[in-house]
Amino acid sequence: MSPPPPATPFSESPSPPPSAEAADPPETQPTSARRRPGGRTARVREQVLDAVSALLVEGGYDALTVDAVAARAGVHRTTVYRRWKDVGGLLADVLDAAGGDGWRPADTGDLTGDLTALNQEILAGLSARPPITEALIAASFRSDEAARALRRFWDDRYERCGAVVERAVRRGELPADTDARRLLVAATAPLYHELVLLRTPPDPELPAQAARSAALAAAAGAFGGTRG
Amino acid sequence: MSPPPPATPFSESPSPPPSAEAADPPETQPTSARRRPGGRTARVREQVLDAVSALLVEGGYDALTVDAVAARAGVHRTTVYRRWKDVGGLLADVLDAAGGDGWRPADTGDLTGDLTALNQEILAGLSARPPITEALIAASFRSDEAARALRRFWDDRYERCGAVVERAVRRGELPADTDARRLLVAATAPLYHELVLLRTPPDPELPAQAARSAALAAAAGAFGGTRG
Repeated sequence: MSPPPPATPFSESPSPPPSAEAADPPETQPTSARRRPGGRTARVREQVLDAVSALLVEGGYDALTVDAVAARAGVHRTTVYRRWKDVGGLLADVLDAAGGDGWRPADTGDLTGDLTALNQEILAGLSARPPITEALIAASFRSDEAARALRRFWDDRYERCGAVVERAVRRGELPADTDARRLLVAATAPLYHELVLLRTPPDPELPAQAARSAALAAAAGAFGGTRG
Repeated sequence: MSPPPPATPFSESPSPPPSAEAADPPETQPTSARRRPGGRTARVREQVLDAVSALLVEGGYDALTVDAVAARAGVHRTTVYRRWKDVGGLLADVLDAAGGDGWRPADTGDLTGDLTALNQEILAGLSARPPITEALIAASFRSDEAARALRRFWDDRYERCGAVVERAVRRGELPADTDARRLLVAATAPLYHELVLLRTPPDPELPAQAARSAALAAAAGAFGGTRG
């Protein structure tokens, strides 16, 4: 069983779940697409987005053209142009599809456990082979549309992770006015910094270590509360 | 007076200081370059690296070619090919030159102050215009040689910041076995994550906030010590 998409785009399965199409917010759905969830439109989208992911990990952003995607997906190029317009639109839809899942953060019973589980998913995503997450992050430096979609994806993931902080507040582990986003960024940022920017080999201890230090800081009121 | 290069490549001044050439370790200095610090070789290097930075911020990685750099720098293209070989070599030398300075972290008298000062330099570097730091990070996703040079640069910066942790240990603010690198990454990673990957507008409170939370976690033993 593959893990659910973590707070990185995804770990192994680039295909959106069947519900992703129906879950799309209207503004990310080109008006020309006929919406028949589970039907031909959904199949074409899955084929096209799989082709984008495959080409991206194989040849990077430079290998991505609408024509190459259409050929790889086995669909007509005018279908791709009409629905996704260009490479930026394709990349954004890969990210929107990845975000259109039912992912929820693990509930382990305590804050450090929840943050460790989240960080383990991030580590798995960032060190997965093929490196789709890494390739999407790299592509976000080439396409503004992909950058905006990546930001939407992460904002949504951090939003869902707010549940981790709410549970910890309810258990009395954290001050009630803890800034969830700041705590979550503090807990997860060392993973992204080490693996994406510093390009350090994955350290299996880092997820728990970064989770523990953020939880200690949070309990001490670093993200709100009397000492914040 | 411009600030010293922060833990990001640099904030405003892309020119290496006069000492940078002499300070180069042997392996980053192409063997064909005749080393006459302060002389013609140093001047040519400065002109060429300034041209690389200018072209990079103006047109991104795609605007960088050896010929364009030579034309912009007003030096013969064979000089550039001979000494830097290719775009990767040019980018790596920009980063090596930026690292060849006398930068040291500020000494404010306490750990939170030192980490805040460091984070303020990082925020300034990442939000500087022209966005040379941002452009170099983006280029590191295009060139393995630039990626390695960026990693060298940051590793060296974190190494120099070890002084911040040593001082805090001597003052009794931290356990003696504090892992300096982990603490420093925890303190600085939220800046990089928010500004480079999440692309959040610069938040002037973030430097102090991230510094305070890392210092609280460190004092609680999160990076070593009895509770680590």
